Amino acid sequence: MLIRSDVEAAYARIDPYIRTTPTVSTETGSFGSRAQVSLVCEFMQHSGSFKARGAMNRLLSARETGELGQTGAIAASGGNAGLGVAYAAGQLGLPATIYLPETAPLVKVKRLLGLGATVRQVGAEYAEAYDAARLEEERTGAIFVHAYDQPEVCAGQGTIGLQLESQLEAVDTVLVSVGGGGLLGGICAALNSRVAIVGVEPENIPTWHSARIAGGPVDVGVSGVAVDSLGARRMGEIGYAAAVDATAASVLVSDEAIVEARQVLWDTYRIVVELGTAAALAALTSGAYQPEDGERVAVILCGANTITSGLS
Amino acid sequence: MLIRSDVEAAYARIDPYIRTTPTVSTETGSFGSRAQVSLVCEFMQHSGSFKARGAMNRLLSARETGELGQTGAIAASGGNAGLGVAYAAGQLGLPATIYLPETAPLVKVKRLLGLGATVRQVGAEYAEAYDAARLEEERTGAIFVHAYDQPEVCAGQGTIGLQLESQLEAVDTVLVSVGGGGLLGGICAALNSRVAIVGVEPENIPTWHSARIAGGPVDVGVSGVAVDSLGARRMGEIGYAAAVDATAASVLVSDEAIVEARQVLWDTYRIVVELGTAAALAALTSGAYQPEDGERVAVILCGANTITSGLS
Ligand SMILES: Cc1ncc(COP(=O)(O)O)c(C=O)c1O
Ligand SMILES: Cc1ncc(COP(=O)(O)O)c(C=O)c1O
Repeated sequence: MLIRSDVEAAYARIDPYIRTTPTVSTETGSFGSRAQVSLVCEFMQHSGSFKARGAMNRLLSARETGELGQTGAIAASGGNAGLGVAYAAGQLGLPATIYLPETAPLVKVKRLLGLGATVRQVGAEYAEAYDAARLEEERTGAIFVHAYDQPEVCAGQGTIGLQLESQLEAVDTVLVSVGGGGLLGGICAALNSRVAIVGVEPENIPTWHSARIAGGPVDVGVSGVAVDSLGARRMGEIGYAAAVDATAASVLVSDEAIVEARQVLWDTYRIVVELGTAAALAALTSGAYQPEDGERVAVILCGANTITSGLS
Repeated sequence: MLIRSDVEAAYARIDPYIRTTPTVSTETGSFGSRAQVSLVCEFMQHSGSFKARGAMNRLLSARETGELGQTGAIAASGGNAGLGVAYAAGQLGLPATIYLPETAPLVKVKRLLGLGATVRQVGAEYAEAYDAARLEEERTGAIFVHAYDQPEVCAGQGTIGLQLESQLEAVDTVLVSVGGGGLLGGICAALNSRVAIVGVEPENIPTWHSARIAGGPVDVGVSGVAVDSLGARRMGEIGYAAAVDATAASVLVSDEAIVEARQVLWDTYRIVVELGTAAALAALTSGAYQPEDGERVAVILCGANTITSGLS
């Protein structure tokens, strides 16, 4: 089980390489709630999302144990996880090889190349790219960085929890978007018993919701506006265990609520986030999560690797 | 002459109505410089720009002197100044009437209506809308809020200077975009003799640059990518006097450099600003302003009332 001291160790490790992202207090009653809402602007992180934290911790941990060699890092993700790995490897002067399906959009390939990564496009689906990555890991001894289900990755993501603790005088509740649950699990490990934690997911991809009901991670359908970042098919074991231990809550939001929350954030704060990130805020704007009057709620705005269109 | 105590008084007045916007420290050597750059995220201000500060101070000052009646506020601007006035009047529960030419884009009209303003579209050019607004001011006794050339407006804008002083341990230099010079003048009044202040303008609209050379405000050509926000035809007298007294520097940037700076900010921090705002950052990214090694430079990111397209 991942615990707070793992996250503390991760923070000490990655601190020189990551940004302390700003946390913005909003007016009482913002976003249709009666809460005191703070926005954790993690979208300003290197590589455009929190994934740089987990990847950095995974690579630095492997360096400590002597496993990290000159073959560098491997990942299978054209999204934020791949970008985070590309950033982290670059910081250590090592190569990053990112596996994507041949169908991956050009814009993603370009972003990865821009961060200095080598891109290998294999197969028609992510499963094939993933298998190719794991084969290459065996062959070369490069460090494979999972998008969410590795202890070092979860612990790295959880450092956002420690950061916000140091930034805010007091927090009652943290709202966090869930895909594979690495971020939720890390924050649960960091803040277990200190604050209430709510995992927010699209109705169309209810990995945490379904895992809670089933008593363990199960496959779910994957569709809707946030597949790009929250499209894991099932929750990771590590995140699940940490979330259960912290008695994290589960809230579902509709795709319409996600799109609307993204627009509300732009209208009121001129902040652009991607749809997966907007899910967390949608819990408030849609009323799916109803805080008490004056409840101090921190919303993790975790990424903005988004095309900026779709906003009016 | 506007002085620091005017800005301090403005700050005390408007503080309950405006946001303390976050200031973000960036890595040493960011944006192609060797400086320690901080970004003042004023684009998160109510109404999407710093103009809410000046408008709020103008209306609250008028309330103190008994001039502010139930006819509320009047302005002639479809841009950030109009939005700031609409916001400020709304905060005081008073009507705002905003004059625009008939040619004003629908998106601007909609934003103003969204803030509860009454929009009057008069004539084919701003000059006509402006004249109509001043006539209405005489007729109704409503408070006219100038976009930049009123002491209360300048003093309100200058509160950003006091804010950043309280947020940053030390600042050597402040980079600020200049249109009519209300923002520059306010910051000069606030920080005169304490920091170096650099007014940055597009080569295509050099109001401050030309005023310095001519020894006073003169008309300039108005064209290019930033006309929307920096398109004043000449600098205001109040801002000019304060800028001269503070021996503010002047830097010009090309339209290409402005577009590029906006993209760089998105690429590295996932922050979207409007082109007029990007001008200040362009002084760094283009090398038009060359800070010394380790110089502590604050860049005012003053607005984001922009359509989000144009970024890749
Ligand atoms: C922006 C954003 N938010 C949330 C998540 C969900 O993170 P996790 O998969 O760790 O649950 C992701 C994952 O890629 C993401 O990119
Ligand atoms: C975003 C932005 N930046 C800078 C300015 C320039 O301000 P000033 O006219 O006070 O020089 C404006 C004016 O509208 C603006 O909207």
